[in-house]
Amino acid sequence: MTRKIQVLKDITSANDAIAAQNQELLGKHHILALNVMSSPGAGKTSLILNTIARLRSKLSIAVIEGDIASKVDADKIGKEGIPVVQINTGGGCSLEATMVSSALPRLPLEKTDVLFIENVGNLVCPATFALGEHKKLVIASIPEGDDKPTKYPIMFAEADVVVVNKLDLLPYVDFDLVHFRKVVKGLNPDVQIFEVSCKTGEGLDAWCSWLANEVGSR
Amino acid sequence: MTRKIQVLKDITSANDAIAAQNQELLGKHHILALNVMSSPGAGKTSLILNTIARLRSKLSIAVIEGDIASKVDADKIGKEGIPVVQINTGGGCSLEATMVSSALPRLPLEKTDVLFIENVGNLVCPATFALGEHKKLVIASIPEGDDKPTKYPIMFAEADVVVVNKLDLLPYVDFDLVHFRKVVKGLNPDVQIFEVSCKTGEGLDAWCSWLANEVGSR
Repeated sequence: MTRKIQVLKDITSANDAIAAQNQELLGKHHILALNVMSSPGAGKTSLILNTIARLRSKLSIAVIEGDIASKVDADKIGKEGIPVVQINTGGGCSLEATMVSSALPRLPLEKTDVLFIENVGNLVCPATFALGEHKKLVIASIPEGDDKPTKYPIMFAEADVVVVNKLDLLPYVDFDLVHFRKVVKGLNPDVQIFEVSCKTGEGLDAWCSWLANEVGSR
Repeated sequence: MTRKIQVLKDITSANDAIAAQNQELLGKHHILALNVMSSPGAGKTSLILNTIARLRSKLSIAVIEGDIASKVDADKIGKEGIPVVQINTGGGCSLEATMVSSALPRLPLEKTDVLFIENVGNLVCPATFALGEHKKLVIASIPEGDDKPTKYPIMFAEADVVVVNKLDLLPYVDFDLVHFRKVVKGLNPDVQIFEVSCKTGEGLDAWCSWLANEVGSR
């Protein structure tokens, strides 16, 4: 057990060193990079697509897509004419900094303002691996239930922004938004929380204003 | 990288040896053990609670609850008067066989027919760690979208049973059940698929009949 923990610590330190290099490269190009994390199917790609639709006239956006397998998500982003690189982790439960460092030279960094790095759908492993991002964005989804921050506290404690998606399903499921906000703020008092529906568009303007403002203030 | 893969291989072999011991112990007591896996919030605990309600007069059920943190789920099961042990993995992204072997002596094995081992909510890591189960049950959820088997193929390829939950939300989201079934059967031709709603009860009788039959045929 001790050996296992030591090796995992070594892996994490090696990862952090490469993440720092990624962040430096992104900084040189004045790019704001977001590590986008959630359970499978909470709406990472939908939020990115909706953000592209609203902000593409003002900001240049690029995307790295991380999945165990398939290029379903990269195809969706590519169809919008947005620069995108798909990474398949095989069985790996999170993107790692080396995967991102391999992808960066394949993107037009000199003309990018915002980079979304969409992680593998997983509320556990991605919390451990820094990628070089400036902000950690966690998406929660109404039908997953309001107890996720209690059960997966590390992810919510480390987030800079939490977006609660699928507000349109609120009438059909038990989800107490007040309780959810309270638990998240208890874990992480400084976190920004946005409530949106990528289906109806509700709440997306507030999220996009925040993001555009973050880019402007860099 | 080679070192990392070697260490992960060592961990997996050590885990498999303990899983085999767990399976032998469960076999001695004629217990059918199911490893219950899904994304966070797909309905693992809800399916277990609904199954308890329908089968408790015929079968003795026990539960092991795996979570990163909290005992929310064990409390729900315990309230029903069902023997339950909560395991918290800390940051660990899956239950492992040693955790189950520590929990087994705390359950009344001599009078148990079915053991549900509810894994950490994660569509990736739990596919790698055998626990000693006889059947792998994967729950998919309608609002997660029908592309999950394409993006997380290992989990669906290894399942003995796939339960599609939250059928009641089908009118409100895009989910093509025919496409979903086709992709799952393509990965795994022998898998059993049930479509249910733990909210309305739809489809639960078929799932419970299958389970009771599996116990009877042991």
